[in-house]
Amino acid sequence: MNFKQHYFQYRKLIDERLAGIARKAEPRTLYEPTRYVFDGGGKRIRGVLVMLAAEAVGGSGQDALGAGAGVEILHNFTLVHDDIMDRAETRRGRQTVHRRWDEGVAILVGDVMIGLAQIALLESRPPHLPEIVMAFARGIIDVCEGQTLDREFESHDGVTLDDYMHMIAMKTGRLLETAAEVGGLAGDGTPEQIEALRSYARHLGQAFQIQDDLLDIVAEEAELGKRIGGDVIEGKKTYLVVRALERAESDDDRKLLRTFLDDRGLPPERIGEMLDLYRRTGVLDAAREDVRSYIGRAAADLEALPATPERDMLAWFAEMLMNRKG
Amino acid sequence: MNFKQHYFQYRKLIDERLAGIARKAEPRTLYEPTRYVFDGGGKRIRGVLVMLAAEAVGGSGQDALGAGAGVEILHNFTLVHDDIMDRAETRRGRQTVHRRWDEGVAILVGDVMIGLAQIALLESRPPHLPEIVMAFARGIIDVCEGQTLDREFESHDGVTLDDYMHMIAMKTGRLLETAAEVGGLAGDGTPEQIEALRSYARHLGQAFQIQDDLLDIVAEEAELGKRIGGDVIEGKKTYLVVRALERAESDDDRKLLRTFLDDRGLPPERIGEMLDLYRRTGVLDAAREDVRSYIGRAAADLEALPATPERDMLAWFAEMLMNRKG
Repeated sequence: MNFKQHYFQYRKLIDERLAGIARKAEPRTLYEPTRYVFDGGGKRIRGVLVMLAAEAVGGSGQDALGAGAGVEILHNFTLVHDDIMDRAETRRGRQTVHRRWDEGVAILVGDVMIGLAQIALLESRPPHLPEIVMAFARGIIDVCEGQTLDREFESHDGVTLDDYMHMIAMKTGRLLETAAEVGGLAGDGTPEQIEALRSYARHLGQAFQIQDDLLDIVAEEAELGKRIGGDVIEGKKTYLVVRALERAESDDDRKLLRTFLDDRGLPPERIGEMLDLYRRTGVLDAAREDVRSYIGRAAADLEALPATPERDMLAWFAEMLMNRKG
Repeated sequence: MNFKQHYFQYRKLIDERLAGIARKAEPRTLYEPTRYVFDGGGKRIRGVLVMLAAEAVGGSGQDALGAGAGVEILHNFTLVHDDIMDRAETRRGRQTVHRRWDEGVAILVGDVMIGLAQIALLESRPPHLPEIVMAFARGIIDVCEGQTLDREFESHDGVTLDDYMHMIAMKTGRLLETAAEVGGLAGDGTPEQIEALRSYARHLGQAFQIQDDLLDIVAEEAELGKRIGGDVIEGKKTYLVVRALERAESDDDRKLLRTFLDDRGLPPERIGEMLDLYRRTGVLDAAREDVRSYIGRAAADLEALPATPERDMLAWFAEMLMNRKG
């Protein structure tokens, strides 16, 4: 199996399926921005994961396309609403929905996408439908909880690494877990296989988020597609910040972190100081090590699945996601 | 059958079911406002309608309680998000969620309620689950379309009565239709019976909205629970406004309506002028007549159902909703 080609083939199928949704013309002020979101590209990680998970338990990836599109739409709904709350200006290099239109439009576009996600799922008539609908519902709830925790974090000081890992498991990891579970159900996997797939996805999500936090400050600008150190400027409590708070011992380091927290971010010219602090406290190395560790756990989870090229595909998929530069 | 007692019994069951949801303590900033919404009371029209519709096709109302709670939660989700867009300060005499907490909380509370609605539904294990989930999904989509049309209306001048009736069929009527459909499915009704129930609910919704627009200006303050003429002050394009635009012929009347539209509302001291205009142009009488006409159509729709006390209950339910003072 040519892993890369397989991934791009499924990604294209998800793209095409999304492009076929919300073609309805009216009301224009609802469906134009909805199509804008669907046309925004992205790696379609969650949609593809549904298809790959179905195959890894012996099912058909193609048959899981509708379910994959459904989970991918759910993910995009969360982005549209999160962007409102985070007051984000851009997403994937384009204006966010609430900036290009307005907040009301962005709220409605997110809401309508939940309905569209269910329809994409239902039209594919997957087996185990009650369980899949339940997985969708729990996925929505957990993502809302994760986003709430994220917002609570921003106003709390005493965030531990455990708190942080729990939050990203809910916020970033949860829909990956939903994708793995839905794919396992659509592919008619055993409960043990589905549990292994969920664990794989959870670990993948944690690795992915730490990698994301790391790339924000060590990637090349062109590769990241956005400003280096954006998290520092915005005062975001990333993995790096939480770890640095645990490790910083010198007065200077503690003072810098204090300023970062109190002022909710640092001016662009001070990003270098923060990077030096991360280096000095060994936080960057710890992050890289944790990424490897979580990917290792994800790979170990796969051992509960039949040893097939489809299982190897999931291992490749995890590696591929970690090798991205931005 | 004691109709009134039956309604209050089912309403209480819906109240109790909602009170049992979202008891989870954490994250507090998500579930505290969610419980606040569930504790807000209301007539539980949509939830009760699910149960009554199930009975009217020969099923069990009690068995449809979970589905009823699900539809009722969906309705409340739309209120929370609509209130953000409409910048509403109060709802049922209490602060709206986005005012009492903030907009981000209100977005997340609405979102999580969609997941909670699905779970309430799924836990009741109704028959015809795929169709019911589809009805939920289409209900969400149509309500979003209706709210979008409502927003488009506010910025357009040439709104006809047909446009208005279509918009309220989507925005107000749609979840009543969903309730009737879901109840019919849960009660294992025939496709013809379910279609009759939907039509009943659609007509009920149209009557209900016109009545709502009428009560805004003719009800007694204490009965309405909010300020008389609020729609006039806010510049809302109600049934009365749309009809008045079609009927006003004198220069004075046209000028007043022009001012209302251009200024997006009138100051409180001019509400009386608007009421006089409505009287003069016969708009109030036309509204009352249309309410009767839509209720008549709803009653006629019921003839497709078996002649039982449960069918009579639905006729009583429609009358009860129209006899409210506020």
